[in-house]
Amino acid sequence: MKTFFDCIPCFVRQSLDAIRMITPDEAVHEQVLREVLRVLAEMDLCQSPPVIAQRIHRLIGVLTGERDPYRQVKDRFNRLALKMYPRLRAGIDESPAPLETAVRLAIAGNVIDMGVNNDLTDAEVHNSVEGALTKALNGQLAVFDRAISSARDILYLTDNAGEIVFDRLLIEQMSPERVTVAVKGAPIINDATMADATAAGLDDLVNVIDNGSDAPGTILEDCSATFREYFDKADMIIAKGQGNYETLSEVDKNIFFVLKAKCPVIARDLGCEVGDFVLRRSNRGRAA
Amino acid sequence: MKTFFDCIPCFVRQSLDAIRMITPDEAVHEQVLREVLRVLAEMDLCQSPPVIAQRIHRLIGVLTGERDPYRQVKDRFNRLALKMYPRLRAGIDESPAPLETAVRLAIAGNVIDMGVNNDLTDAEVHNSVEGALTKALNGQLAVFDRAISSARDILYLTDNAGEIVFDRLLIEQMSPERVTVAVKGAPIINDATMADATAAGLDDLVNVIDNGSDAPGTILEDCSATFREYFDKADMIIAKGQGNYETLSEVDKNIFFVLKAKCPVIARDLGCEVGDFVLRRSNRGRAA
Repeated sequence: MKTFFDCIPCFVRQSLDAIRMITPDEAVHEQVLREVLRVLAEMDLCQSPPVIAQRIHRLIGVLTGERDPYRQVKDRFNRLALKMYPRLRAGIDESPAPLETAVRLAIAGNVIDMGVNNDLTDAEVHNSVEGALTKALNGQLAVFDRAISSARDILYLTDNAGEIVFDRLLIEQMSPERVTVAVKGAPIINDATMADATAAGLDDLVNVIDNGSDAPGTILEDCSATFREYFDKADMIIAKGQGNYETLSEVDKNIFFVLKAKCPVIARDLGCEVGDFVLRRSNRGRAA
Repeated sequence: MKTFFDCIPCFVRQSLDAIRMITPDEAVHEQVLREVLRVLAEMDLCQSPPVIAQRIHRLIGVLTGERDPYRQVKDRFNRLALKMYPRLRAGIDESPAPLETAVRLAIAGNVIDMGVNNDLTDAEVHNSVEGALTKALNGQLAVFDRAISSARDILYLTDNAGEIVFDRLLIEQMSPERVTVAVKGAPIINDATMADATAAGLDDLVNVIDNGSDAPGTILEDCSATFREYFDKADMIIAKGQGNYETLSEVDKNIFFVLKAKCPVIARDLGCEVGDFVLRRSNRGRAA
């Protein structure tokens, strides 16, 4: 997905959020803000939003020396999600439709996205989970279910820390021996890295790899050769969150996008409403 | 009030709103957006937001040749407000506290602000009016009432088209022969100009002047000498809307700010909540 003009105000806001987490020094805020505006003025809009976000957050890292401003926030939401985990797992075990319940919870966890909402409260995460079981699911669960049943090699692309615990609930429903989980290769916003996969207990359950990239999505040409091998040989890809949709929506693979549509640009591109719980097979996957 | 970092994403969004009203040509949208980002990257943040907005909207005018993109929107909201006027006027006439009712309605009309919400619907204006009579008023009505009673020369600074009909309801409650109404000297967003004062019937009721400026607020050094004479000799100023607050909050005059707080930056500066109906005497006015 290309970058839309409406993404630009959001990049500016996201930069402000990040820099405020690094320092209270307003002179630094101003310096970063002006540099970000200069970058945005010259950017190539044919690129997807995560390409531009990667460039901006790298710039913030260079200007401030801080490469992981969201580390504390990531820890906080990992802890919150792990605290919720036993009750959620019990809910799935007792559910008449465990896969559907697990999909709903995995999407509920996608609310933990600091790129969209930097002020997320614990209560909002709880509310997202409470609402998840009754909310209409925009997508074809039966197609997803059949695809999982017939897949030999599933690559699961995670999105954010905290959310990755909700992903674990879904992965537990799909014969984990076939599943490889990928996290980001280096910190970017609150996206999950290897430390978060470990915190979520995923490394005891499945093979976990990192993608070698610090983009908030999956820009294949920016990923490591090892990751690309896994990507190429997988016969089913599960891609969590907006960033993975933005970077993979036009890639020729059997991809299922699993996300909450949190912004009007994504919602328009998906043909859904903001707030929708989306489970969508890629057009390329459908044609295959 | 200076410009806060949080105003920057809003300027970008406002520019997009304006340029989309002028042309559907995305190449022009992109050209304007890049120019606006360059201007924002270099701007002086000690200036108030209307100084920067004036510069951006002038730039849009130069780049597109369109100096009044909101003319149709202004006409639309003038018509809507004039249609509502007889019922609202009857409500004030029947009210046990006509001045208070008129203040509330004048603030309700401040929702017609395309700088904040470009997609405003007629229903939202009706809802604003419905809610206005029961909403808590953040301010001292008694002080305002006494100030009006004792004022010899009132200058009423309007904000937006459509809203100006709601201002008429308030002006009708205050012996109009003492009142001069000021509109903007040239189009800027959907701010009221002389055409809107005429459409609202204000020129039959009071002396109407323009301020000689195309800023979305009252930047005194940018206003005409005639306007400044009126401003200097008035012993009470009623300043409608956020833009007038942003530009006059530190001016040494007896000013009453009458507005709906529509953004977090303004709300923080005023020490109120977003959505509050505010009637606030300037600190300078209070000390005098």
